[in-house]
Amino acid sequence: MHIKDLVSETEKTKAPSFSFEYFPPKTAQGVQNLYDRMDRMDSFGPKFIDITWGAGGNIAELTCEMVVQAQAVYGLETCMHLTCTDMGLDKVNDALQKAYKAGCTNILALRGDPPRDQESWTAADGNFRYARDLVKHIRDTYGDHFDIGVAGYPEGCDDNKDEESLLDHLKEKVDMGAGFIVTQMFYDADNFIRWVGKVRERGITVPILPGIMPIATYASFLRRAKHMQCRVPPEWMTLLEPVKNDDVAVREIGKTLVAELCRKLLANGIHHLHFYTMNLAQATRMVLDELNWTPSPENPLKQALPWKQSKGFGRRDEDVRPIFWRNRNKSYVLRTQDWDEFPNGRWGDSRSPAFGELDAYGIGLTGTNEQNRKKWGEPTSLQDIANTFVKYLEKKIETLPWSESALAAEADPIKDDLVALNKRGLLTINSQPAVDGAKSNHPVHGWGPSNGYVYQKAYLELLMPPYLLEEMISRLDDFPNLTYYAVTKDGGLKSNAPSDAPNAVTWGVFPGKEIVQPTIVESVSFLAWRDEAFRLGIDWAKCYDADSPSRALIEGIMNGWYLVNIVNNDFRENSTIFGFLEGLEVKDLAVPVAGTA
Amino acid sequence: MHIKDLVSETEKTKAPSFSFEYFPPKTAQGVQNLYDRMDRMDSFGPKFIDITWGAGGNIAELTCEMVVQAQAVYGLETCMHLTCTDMGLDKVNDALQKAYKAGCTNILALRGDPPRDQESWTAADGNFRYARDLVKHIRDTYGDHFDIGVAGYPEGCDDNKDEESLLDHLKEKVDMGAGFIVTQMFYDADNFIRWVGKVRERGITVPILPGIMPIATYASFLRRAKHMQCRVPPEWMTLLEPVKNDDVAVREIGKTLVAELCRKLLANGIHHLHFYTMNLAQATRMVLDELNWTPSPENPLKQALPWKQSKGFGRRDEDVRPIFWRNRNKSYVLRTQDWDEFPNGRWGDSRSPAFGELDAYGIGLTGTNEQNRKKWGEPTSLQDIANTFVKYLEKKIETLPWSESALAAEADPIKDDLVALNKRGLLTINSQPAVDGAKSNHPVHGWGPSNGYVYQKAYLELLMPPYLLEEMISRLDDFPNLTYYAVTKDGGLKSNAPSDAPNAVTWGVFPGKEIVQPTIVESVSFLAWRDEAFRLGIDWAKCYDADSPSRALIEGIMNGWYLVNIVNNDFRENSTIFGFLEGLEVKDLAVPVAGTA
Repeated sequence: MHIKDLVSETEKTKAPSFSFEYFPPKTAQGVQNLYDRMDRMDSFGPKFIDITWGAGGNIAELTCEMVVQAQAVYGLETCMHLTCTDMGLDKVNDALQKAYKAGCTNILALRGDPPRDQESWTAADGNFRYARDLVKHIRDTYGDHFDIGVAGYPEGCDDNKDEESLLDHLKEKVDMGAGFIVTQMFYDADNFIRWVGKVRERGITVPILPGIMPIATYASFLRRAKHMQCRVPPEWMTLLEPVKNDDVAVREIGKTLVAELCRKLLANGIHHLHFYTMNLAQATRMVLDELNWTPSPENPLKQALPWKQSKGFGRRDEDVRPIFWRNRNKSYVLRTQDWDEFPNGRWGDSRSPAFGELDAYGIGLTGTNEQNRKKWGEPTSLQDIANTFVKYLEKKIETLPWSESALAAEADPIKDDLVALNKRGLLTINSQPAVDGAKSNHPVHGWGPSNGYVYQKAYLELLMPPYLLEEMISRLDDFPNLTYYAVTKDGGLKSNAPSDAPNAVTWGVFPGKEIVQPTIVESVSFLAWRDEAFRLGIDWAKCYDADSPSRALIEGIMNGWYLVNIVNNDFRENSTIFGFLEGLEVKDLAVPVAGTA
Repeated sequence: MHIKDLVSETEKTKAPSFSFEYFPPKTAQGVQNLYDRMDRMDSFGPKFIDITWGAGGNIAELTCEMVVQAQAVYGLETCMHLTCTDMGLDKVNDALQKAYKAGCTNILALRGDPPRDQESWTAADGNFRYARDLVKHIRDTYGDHFDIGVAGYPEGCDDNKDEESLLDHLKEKVDMGAGFIVTQMFYDADNFIRWVGKVRERGITVPILPGIMPIATYASFLRRAKHMQCRVPPEWMTLLEPVKNDDVAVREIGKTLVAELCRKLLANGIHHLHFYTMNLAQATRMVLDELNWTPSPENPLKQALPWKQSKGFGRRDEDVRPIFWRNRNKSYVLRTQDWDEFPNGRWGDSRSPAFGELDAYGIGLTGTNEQNRKKWGEPTSLQDIANTFVKYLEKKIETLPWSESALAAEADPIKDDLVALNKRGLLTINSQPAVDGAKSNHPVHGWGPSNGYVYQKAYLELLMPPYLLEEMISRLDDFPNLTYYAVTKDGGLKSNAPSDAPNAVTWGVFPGKEIVQPTIVESVSFLAWRDEAFRLGIDWAKCYDADSPSRALIEGIMNGWYLVNIVNNDFRENSTIFGFLEGLEVKDLAVPVAGTA
């Protein structure tokens, strides 16, 4: 979605909004950490993020790669920075093409800094001398596909302090097709408001997004203000200087000052703030909390669907997914990234088994063997395994091989039942409780537009040994509302489902719309998930020495047990599934397993 | 659907089923009456109907035409009789092609009677000498498209009384590809059961459908039994003969005897009965009632969708319709008969406005002017019009120009509100109450497979003058759950709907299935319905003399008022729509309107 549209929505509803800027880290580990942080910080509710242009060499490649990941895998609306004067035409075109293919629709078009060894910049080739040349090039090449942002300088820029000439340039950039302006950081609200007035006087009507730099430490605060040559109001110094050696105090005071600055902007008709996060969460979070803008049970983050949509190329219309990947969102996106269409033609009549390979990057278990052993222990009996699952349910550990994140709050109503199942050795790897028409703005279950109702069928996915499956199946006649699928690592599918067509397990009813049914259970995707689920188990086993009891134990489960999913088609209650499994218990839970040593 | 599959379902569930046979009437009025009767008798729940072959000339054409109508417009699974020896190859092929294009998938292949002026039959050309030749021809030409039935003779046939030779012929016909057997009428159950045993001994395994002839009058009973040369058990005569001049008594005793016959067949492994209705409802209905097979609140007729599906060519997958034609099912089928696809590509992304023309056969108002004036009175004030609408709601009249049948039972919860609206001059022409998850087998609201839940949003469609629409629209801010469309005969569309995409107003949640959403409100089809709705009103006006007050009155409404539909998107309650319209009242209700004379 275009940033100008996101911001104009904000202006219409008068609800303040914000965005986060990140830069490409220098190390691979840093990149991975940043992805995780971007993902977590997305829960604060930014309208979009942007990623600065890593001028020169690999860092430029990295910007493109991060845009792809952010858009497709993490589902973040992303704006890519792009500089031009330090790049050749080919490189600019290459970067634009990569952004296009990533599903990115927003570019911040910048001139670029001069190389360090030159006193002032010169164009790398004849094509780009000013940012406006890049704006024109993008418009000429891609029409309206990209929304194009340009930089604004409320306190002048490095090599030009003449406000009028800078406003001339800004006008030229906007006339050339820019759709929004992002400003440099500043702390002087009054000057900024004055400057906005001058911008508007020039007939520039596009949204202006003020750049806000939260205060993390006194040293970094001073350094950045100096580097950007931005004015610091004297009263800020008066408050911060005395506590400069106390980081906690600096942040506390800083957040109050920055929040005050933000409030001033809002009071003067600015509705969207752009935060320079410096790749850190805390200082930005503190400002947002101070402003009361972060989501809370009273003011939950609105989600369009129960799962995070990908913003990857061609995926914006995707509106249905199998429930199996509920806790493995990234691997689902990766395994389906070669699909041509979302969602039509994929579920329903023309389902395709063409899920991507398991050994592609990002599908298997993450973390080192040592980290994983530490998290999940060194089990020597089924009881030990069961305890690890119980710990996850009790939030004593944050992940399981099949769940990348902590147990969701929505599991609360069935948590005790899940714990009881796992204590009996039935290992649950996915579940959702029944929801019988919660309001679409419900803090836990809600999703989709306002004034709607959302529904879920209770769902349970678990590992169980063959003798328990047999007993389970023998009970089915008494449970006409339950449908199940069961499969071993290599064996055929067992099921009592009336057909292999999709079973909607999450849906929503909204004013003036067709019924939306974003989560399904169906057979073809279950077999693709089966491969992944058992592979994750085998990966876990391989965290232990080849001849260890833990390896033997986990491999035994993966090679002999069934992966079973159960849907309670009566979406009005949770208890039937647990009643159905009542009394089922794995044999010899506490008997130690010997390694092969 | 193939009859052999319909019957085999019956055998699986052990639930008895039945079918009705009709023949082409001799007059056009007779045909129209028969359609109406077939439609009404469909509510008894036959699995299929069949239509006999009108040998020779126009009557043959009529059989084809009736098959088209029954399949497409009335949604009846139809079997077409076809004779061969009295027809040329071209005529047979023509009839088969017509059946195919009608969406018909079942043919009863018969030899045919000899022409009256010949003592015994001779083949019309070299192609068909026996029914088995026709069976082979159909198989050769159409593969498995048609299920083919053949005649069985438990008591011998006109020109052949030799049971063994008849069984030889039957075996030949089945070997040639027949999928089921329909027998001649009989009253001797024991003989029939004996005969079935002999059929089975021959290795014939296809379903046998016994032909049951209910008893209407003593005379017709005797005549038919004699004509078909079928044995009447002496005890039947003993019971019927004494009351032969009392039709009521004959039917009462007859229904007991025939029902007893049916029970004997069921007890002997026959699960489907084929009734020779002779185009009459009563005698068949009495037998079915006696058997307790007709639908009742405890045992409602199962409907796949809330509206009657067409079985026309290419329409079997149709699963979504606009609500506007709810009481005009036939005209919807006629106006969409040229559509290529159902339902995909029609609603949703690629909606098409290509509804058929209004002046096609069957779209306009039915009945003569005189009949309609009698039904709907000679109104001279808006109050008179309103009273006619109230009469319809109170079931004192059975139809309105916009409703072909009596008010549905489901309207009961909102009937008082509807009456109140109409008394104030707001003329309601369509409505449905809210349903918040009724069981899918609910006697009034239920449809679709077992163990599901069905939902409806409250819907109201009405005619109102512009000043009331204005007032209504001004109230909308207080009713965020309501969406409306309004349009005059010639004017543009007004609406507060968030988009012109479909709004699902009826949907169902079923075990192991996606959500089914068979009824929608959307803008393109509403405009097509608008044309029809105003046309029906103008047709009504034209039932009155050109210069009469009634004509002026109704034309005034049609030319000046709005057609308005309102959806309450909160499907949990009915009251909001009526609250929304509270106090709105048409001015000068009782003022007489002058004609132009």
